[in-house]
Amino acid sequence: MAGLVPAIHVFYAVTPIFGLPGIRLGMTPESVVAAAISPLAPKHVPEMPVIAGVRLATAEAGIRYKNRTDVLLALFDPGTTAAGVFTRSKCPSAPVEWCRGILKNGKARALVVNSGNANAFTGKSGRAATKLTAEIAARASGCKPGEIFLASTGVIGEPLDASKFEPVMEGLAARAKEGDFLEAAKAIMTTDTFPKVATATAAIGNATVTIGGIAKGAGMIAPDMATMLSFVFTDAAIAAPALQSLLKESVVDTFNAVTVDGDTSTSDTLMLFATAKAEGCPRIGRASDPRLKNFRKALHDVLANLAEQVARDGEGARKLIEITVEGAVSNASARKIAMSIANSPLVKTAIAGEDANWGRVVMAVGKAGEPADRDKLSIWFGGIRVAHKGERDPAYDEAKVSAAMKEPEIKVKVALGLGKGRDRVLTCDLTKEYVAINGDYRS
Amino acid sequence: MAGLVPAIHVFYAVTPIFGLPGIRLGMTPESVVAAAISPLAPKHVPEMPVIAGVRLATAEAGIRYKNRTDVLLALFDPGTTAAGVFTRSKCPSAPVEWCRGILKNGKARALVVNSGNANAFTGKSGRAATKLTAEIAARASGCKPGEIFLASTGVIGEPLDASKFEPVMEGLAARAKEGDFLEAAKAIMTTDTFPKVATATAAIGNATVTIGGIAKGAGMIAPDMATMLSFVFTDAAIAAPALQSLLKESVVDTFNAVTVDGDTSTSDTLMLFATAKAEGCPRIGRASDPRLKNFRKALHDVLANLAEQVARDGEGARKLIEITVEGAVSNASARKIAMSIANSPLVKTAIAGEDANWGRVVMAVGKAGEPADRDKLSIWFGGIRVAHKGERDPAYDEAKVSAAMKEPEIKVKVALGLGKGRDRVLTCDLTKEYVAINGDYRS
Repeated sequence: MAGLVPAIHVFYAVTPIFGLPGIRLGMTPESVVAAAISPLAPKHVPEMPVIAGVRLATAEAGIRYKNRTDVLLALFDPGTTAAGVFTRSKCPSAPVEWCRGILKNGKARALVVNSGNANAFTGKSGRAATKLTAEIAARASGCKPGEIFLASTGVIGEPLDASKFEPVMEGLAARAKEGDFLEAAKAIMTTDTFPKVATATAAIGNATVTIGGIAKGAGMIAPDMATMLSFVFTDAAIAAPALQSLLKESVVDTFNAVTVDGDTSTSDTLMLFATAKAEGCPRIGRASDPRLKNFRKALHDVLANLAEQVARDGEGARKLIEITVEGAVSNASARKIAMSIANSPLVKTAIAGEDANWGRVVMAVGKAGEPADRDKLSIWFGGIRVAHKGERDPAYDEAKVSAAMKEPEIKVKVALGLGKGRDRVLTCDLTKEYVAINGDYRS
Repeated sequence: MAGLVPAIHVFYAVTPIFGLPGIRLGMTPESVVAAAISPLAPKHVPEMPVIAGVRLATAEAGIRYKNRTDVLLALFDPGTTAAGVFTRSKCPSAPVEWCRGILKNGKARALVVNSGNANAFTGKSGRAATKLTAEIAARASGCKPGEIFLASTGVIGEPLDASKFEPVMEGLAARAKEGDFLEAAKAIMTTDTFPKVATATAAIGNATVTIGGIAKGAGMIAPDMATMLSFVFTDAAIAAPALQSLLKESVVDTFNAVTVDGDTSTSDTLMLFATAKAEGCPRIGRASDPRLKNFRKALHDVLANLAEQVARDGEGARKLIEITVEGAVSNASARKIAMSIANSPLVKTAIAGEDANWGRVVMAVGKAGEPADRDKLSIWFGGIRVAHKGERDPAYDEAKVSAAMKEPEIKVKVALGLGKGRDRVLTCDLTKEYVAINGDYRS
């Protein structure tokens, strides 16, 4: 990994003036309108570890992009268990249907991900493309098609020519090696401006296990799921049903608490693979096993970190927005109100304009349809209370609030004063760049 | 009214290149970022009739704007009945609460509307401001405060100084005269780029009655209600409960079928006043009276026309979008799917970019949560079928669709193939101008 360090440093050089041409990630102009790296990109990228039992390789299959990698193969050692959560769209992509179909087996030998084409709304040809991709990968990897998980991201509604995987798959399988998560993260990007990786370690019994994950997001980001694609790998030994429970539990306050535009992809996929290769790791059969306490926390941290990176790379984003709602009648009610604020175009454009327009926050609370009493409502921007009990806070210092609004990270807090329900979600602002990116993506 | 005609013509001179400085409506730069008249503004403005029993006057109260009218007084003859539908926001404005409180009386002698300040989230001072406004208007109009309806539009969360109405109200009441609906429509504008008026006549028994309405909208437009403010007047003689039924029924497929950004104002108000002054008009007591057939249709036409004008003046809009959903399991299901498409930032930005990105329509159908079968779905843009039964239409001619997408009015049709549920909603595209307008409104 050491050889990658300089590249990482270049990668994260933050472009000071957003919207000016910045460092491009090898995408063609066709695919990227504003490829300057998000000013919200993390300043530091973790040195990604090796996950025993996971080998990775990327290639240029030429699905849509030129001069960049667009296919990832992850190979898993025998005995690897799998868990997954997927979009709740009623019109899911063919790969999502494929993964749902084979997930019941709980076993994985490989994962194939491509960018550039989502293989969504592609009818019979879409199903045929998933089948062919799995067959090609199974041949190259020496396993069964039913052990190959698939994900695709990119344009919807265009047939995916899976035969393009044929000439590259043997080479991918031959080249696959441990590590290289950053390269893997790059291969699955679409309108992302930086690759997303995160890692943590945890103790299970006397063993130390490692977790490493990658994600891609940027637009069409909303629960449920909140990212288009994320893949997390661990060398822990956890039975598939327990792994599935852990993942479902952890997604609630991580990926499902992030929204960019309220739009939900047909392809949203989060998978967790456990290779059981960590030295001395006891095999865990149940999610309630107390030995998972530390692992559960570490998994949450990795998912939360990746989810936050997705918000930081929201299309056109210049502000990361954390919305906290407290005093709601329940946590579920707090979540609905927080999401109503996070998805409000008027709130998001106000924050883009560095305007602490708490009137629009009131509007978004009001339209959520959840219990709220205007005359008990208080609102903070950047820790400064601007409204209290249904009126402008008399001590409200406009200059201080204005200064807070210039920061790249904006905290909005709403106290409803009704109960103990509480929630926190992340989003980003809505800028002209979002419109530019999405007004000229496909054509 | 004839004297107004040249002014109207100037008013509607469509600015050919949107975003360039156009004709400004006397607003200060503070209040208006992009005041060029919407390219979607109606080409013709109807000559507005007189409504017997309704007298109007406008004034400059200096609430927020300079050098433009910002307060409207409408005086009604004794015997006028009133109906109203209001925002479903849990945090409604003080005037909405005021109107709800007095609506049960069903009688109206005056209406006071101001722009520049919404008197919303203003706590006790907001309630005091509505009371004071009604008292000032009642004194000037010679009636009781409980017969005065109120509406305010503009900034939320700033106290409204109702004493500013004091110096202008006597003059308003003295000057009020029949007609002048266009001036009334101008006084209630905020970020609107053109005033909105509509009219129709109808037969009730042997009498001909007249309906005239004004509206303002532009942003924060979503059911329920779909406009911030609209006031409709008729000289028909209809008892208050019947008037209320007519209004509730008519709003469903008119104002409630329009969305600009999915955001719901705290102030949304639609009121209907009937003066009973039409010569020979029988007094109608029940909404089920068969003599209302023609009036019902005319009222629907006026509301539909005003609602469409609101969509045409969506903040930053360059395209009017009609979304038709058919083949849903029910009309209610079709409405939810149509609104999911209409409120999707990704669909709206694609149309802004003149891109027939039906993949995003599939996404929006999928996220609506309503029954949908990807493999039965067909989608049309501008009357051209681009997707059929879950795949790209083989006969899909990209050049023809591209030409259709350059039109100012875009029709999107989705056929679900499941049942007989059908709906139609109007929206507009999401442009950089929307972000510009809303990123710099308050500050």
